[in-house]
Amino acid sequence: MNLKLQWLRNKMSSLNLQGMIISNPINIKYLTNINAEGTLIITPKENIYITDGRYIEDVHSTLTLFDEIIVYNVNSVSKDDYENFFMFCENVGFEEHYISYATYKDYIRKFKINNFIETEYMIEKQRMIKDEEELSNIIKACNVTDECFKYILGYIKPGMTEKQIAKEIENYYIERTDGLSFETIVASGENSSKPHAVPTDRKIQERDIITIDMGCIVNGYCSDMTRTFFVGEPTDEMKKVYDLVLANQKIVLEEYKDGASTRQITKMVENNFKLNGYDLIHSLGHGVGLEIHESPYISYRADSFLRENMIVTDEPGIYIPGKFGVRIEDTVQITKFGCISLTNSEKNIIMI
Amino acid sequence: MNLKLQWLRNKMSSLNLQGMIISNPINIKYLTNINAEGTLIITPKENIYITDGRYIEDVHSTLTLFDEIIVYNVNSVSKDDYENFFMFCENVGFEEHYISYATYKDYIRKFKINNFIETEYMIEKQRMIKDEEELSNIIKACNVTDECFKYILGYIKPGMTEKQIAKEIENYYIERTDGLSFETIVASGENSSKPHAVPTDRKIQERDIITIDMGCIVNGYCSDMTRTFFVGEPTDEMKKVYDLVLANQKIVLEEYKDGASTRQITKMVENNFKLNGYDLIHSLGHGVGLEIHESPYISYRADSFLRENMIVTDEPGIYIPGKFGVRIEDTVQITKFGCISLTNSEKNIIMI
Repeated sequence: MNLKLQWLRNKMSSLNLQGMIISNPINIKYLTNINAEGTLIITPKENIYITDGRYIEDVHSTLTLFDEIIVYNVNSVSKDDYENFFMFCENVGFEEHYISYATYKDYIRKFKINNFIETEYMIEKQRMIKDEEELSNIIKACNVTDECFKYILGYIKPGMTEKQIAKEIENYYIERTDGLSFETIVASGENSSKPHAVPTDRKIQERDIITIDMGCIVNGYCSDMTRTFFVGEPTDEMKKVYDLVLANQKIVLEEYKDGASTRQITKMVENNFKLNGYDLIHSLGHGVGLEIHESPYISYRADSFLRENMIVTDEPGIYIPGKFGVRIEDTVQITKFGCISLTNSEKNIIMI
Repeated sequence: MNLKLQWLRNKMSSLNLQGMIISNPINIKYLTNINAEGTLIITPKENIYITDGRYIEDVHSTLTLFDEIIVYNVNSVSKDDYENFFMFCENVGFEEHYISYATYKDYIRKFKINNFIETEYMIEKQRMIKDEEELSNIIKACNVTDECFKYILGYIKPGMTEKQIAKEIENYYIERTDGLSFETIVASGENSSKPHAVPTDRKIQERDIITIDMGCIVNGYCSDMTRTFFVGEPTDEMKKVYDLVLANQKIVLEEYKDGASTRQITKMVENNFKLNGYDLIHSLGHGVGLEIHESPYISYRADSFLRENMIVTDEPGIYIPGKFGVRIEDTVQITKFGCISLTNSEKNIIMI
């Protein structure tokens, strides 16, 4: 059986769950590599994936014998099959955030479940800690992102539109990876003051500030990096804000380590910004993995602690409405005594 | 209060519901025109929309005094507020298909709800019957679709790619409407044998068969039309299949009327196809409104009856794997004694 399913069965056993129904498609992908619509059923004896005709062929080509997963077409699962899956199970786990109340009731009826137990993001919590294969995929995605950024710096010329630059990044990624991990942000001039700007037809001009937030997917795993740079010399105000953001981005890298409190680190950056008259208006970072945004979330609201082999971003930003914004972001691996930045593009002021 | 909220309150009253929580964003749009993320709360005295900072401004600009909807920022709703909303309510309705089991439990706790009652697609069922304003929007979307099809027939030339044609349709719609109601299908040659083909880089050739499935949105309401046509003369086999599909598409138009059984009509087409050695591999049609696919679903599985002022599609198709496919589809208004086709593009064999 594959290692992740083995982990799941051990975890279930420790919680006295004899069966489980997994509905979150990302969790299913994590456990099985299957990228489809369906439900994963862990019974005392078997691992069963129930899907429909559209996906059967594709699912079979994804799985290996080693996975030990039986694939069923939903149309061929009988009333008796449903009742037999959890026949001798006292407790069956489910993902309470990923099935509707109607489905919850339907499952209890259809599977004849005795005790249907909420599993409280059990798999999502495990997904925070990456194994070697996951790390290797994320590192690859980060490497291509560094290379893409280097390429795009040479590509950008005044007169090009933000959309054109975003398209070039997309093409670069599509040729080398499984594609974008999110819609690329290319925000120039005053557009950079919006943290979630969408590329427009605005043309790059002399003396522009440009923020690019970009990432790709390798074997399902994401990268995420932001750099802010300049066409020619930045203004004094831009330089001052850039230096403040960069200094804080670097301090955070020094604080990130196994056991560090995400709330405390966020508070520190907030205070540093406030002392200089600015606000931190978004969270400081987030986990990266099969999803571009996943647990842990690094903000003052989340009271969580970093752990070895978590992959998180470090992305402070300052936004001056109607004028400009600066954000600098790396994807980072947490280690026992510190962290390793997986994106390594230039962070000192870049002028093109 | 707006008419749709008045309908809802009457309906609730007939079901002995003193309050209701509405979670399906399309239902909220239907009742209020609000297009955002949030929850609509119907209390005995007030209509309340709870959203977050990202949407507040936009929601306020959508609503009029006539709507009688109070907008709350979720961050400013206190524990007491939640408990007061349904204070004297015996029964509160909810949408069991649109909240997770976790949210269901959270609501009961937070709102201190006595009896939380499933409402069984109550609003979706009402949405099937369109009022005058809805009809007028759908008719506009269908008119632009006819015009767009006429335009695109003149635009297509051998050597163009499917993607290029799909892009031209998108541009046509974007200039005149609120955009596409779904990703346009342009499927040429052997690609037309896939009902859900995605436009590729395949170039249109002489003697090609081309299927285009297209639609746009006007004030939130969708249109949906498919035509299959030919570059030059079709083969005898193509002609035979085309005539069979068209004959059935027209018979269905004669059968569509208030009271007609969707299952019987589907069975009829299936039988006609079978007699000629073909299968009907997808449903015969679906409702069209705020969603491109909504109730009623017209297939042998659904046992429902058409009603006056439902808007549905009529879209039989035959697909010969690896060779070609033919689908002809109109968006249609059901009337007391028949139906009115709202898309009216040419259906006799078109050769470009």
